[in-house]
Amino acid sequence: MTQTPSTSTALSPSQYGVGARFTLSVYDSNYVEVILDALAAADASGLEIETGDISTFVGGGEQRILEFLCAVVARAAQSGAHLSASILLSRGCPGELQCELPQGVSALGAAPVQLDRTGIRARSHWSLYPLLDDGPGPGSDSDGGAAGDHMTPIMAAIERAKERGIYSGSDRFATRLDGDLSDVLETVANTWIDVGSSVQHVVTHLVVSINSPSQIAD
Amino acid sequence: MTQTPSTSTALSPSQYGVGARFTLSVYDSNYVEVILDALAAADASGLEIETGDISTFVGGGEQRILEFLCAVVARAAQSGAHLSASILLSRGCPGELQCELPQGVSALGAAPVQLDRTGIRARSHWSLYPLLDDGPGPGSDSDGGAAGDHMTPIMAAIERAKERGIYSGSDRFATRLDGDLSDVLETVANTWIDVGSSVQHVVTHLVVSINSPSQIAD
Repeated sequence: MTQTPSTSTALSPSQYGVGARFTLSVYDSNYVEVILDALAAADASGLEIETGDISTFVGGGEQRILEFLCAVVARAAQSGAHLSASILLSRGCPGELQCELPQGVSALGAAPVQLDRTGIRARSHWSLYPLLDDGPGPGSDSDGGAAGDHMTPIMAAIERAKERGIYSGSDRFATRLDGDLSDVLETVANTWIDVGSSVQHVVTHLVVSINSPSQIAD
Repeated sequence: MTQTPSTSTALSPSQYGVGARFTLSVYDSNYVEVILDALAAADASGLEIETGDISTFVGGGEQRILEFLCAVVARAAQSGAHLSASILLSRGCPGELQCELPQGVSALGAAPVQLDRTGIRARSHWSLYPLLDDGPGPGSDSDGGAAGDHMTPIMAAIERAKERGIYSGSDRFATRLDGDLSDVLETVANTWIDVGSSVQHVVTHLVVSINSPSQIAD
């Protein structure tokens, strides 16, 4: 764990429920080797990794989680095989079935992540889910009387993707991102972290497609 | 469009933003044939289908959408190849970037879907996101003063999966379902529809794994 939240209530990422779950799909008969090689080659130090038959859980600090995800997907992509990765990032809901945080902790952001360029083009569909409850949220009035609007932080996140130059359109239920794998993951992670500073439970889903033969050339 | 919502404001599924987006990943060098065959063999009547390089959009009534998804995934699974499908179901948020519904429409359920057994075992990770805003929601007090708790409908949905006999555990950020592909899809769809009767914008994500060599035998 390399990061602690910037708050007087210093929760570890694990206590705050920070983590990822991802499924790496390799469209190649040699998929077992490609996937095992990619998982083995990525630096998992400081992380909790649980690989199962459906997906892999990654727990730890935001920067390390994203470095790991980027390394695994980039390594698999370097095989040349067409692949997709279905990635979920979650924060603010620790525990199995209950979101139980210590008293007095409602929403915690974190430092933004930074990833090295990979040179790998990733076309992606992205969705962001701020799971507001009855507390004040983005768009609340100043006395916290309104619960907010879950679309406001989503629109702000899309604006950031546009500024980053990777916004590629809005499809139904998902925003299209197209750029270097590191830019895509950074944008998705940093908007998720930002929304997390005002909404406790925030989840984002991303489907990345790499090396697709049907991909339109630049 | 085979269904109309049971309300005086008769919106079509399309007007209400009912639809699916899915990525079918086939872990086989022959993936193009398997995917194209599965898409071509499924009955798309009454549906709007848009296949892109990252995912496929399916719009229409709930029953037809689920029949189509089940048929595509089952057909691909019959190839014997290991595959995963990343599926998103969404309702209550039509339009591209804005959730604009006609005035007076807040939340619409639908009739439950029913699917024929496939004989195909599907192990899955499932997440349900009721996107509450500042209106009354499940768990509200009677005068609608509280905005509700997004975990209450999630817990109710998990109970239904247990009653159905396909609940297989709670992993971090996802519930594990294990059963016939049709039972998994029916449970995911019908809890999504149920929550939709009291929460306008509801999204559910499912990752299904079929024919995995690492799958633990019954």
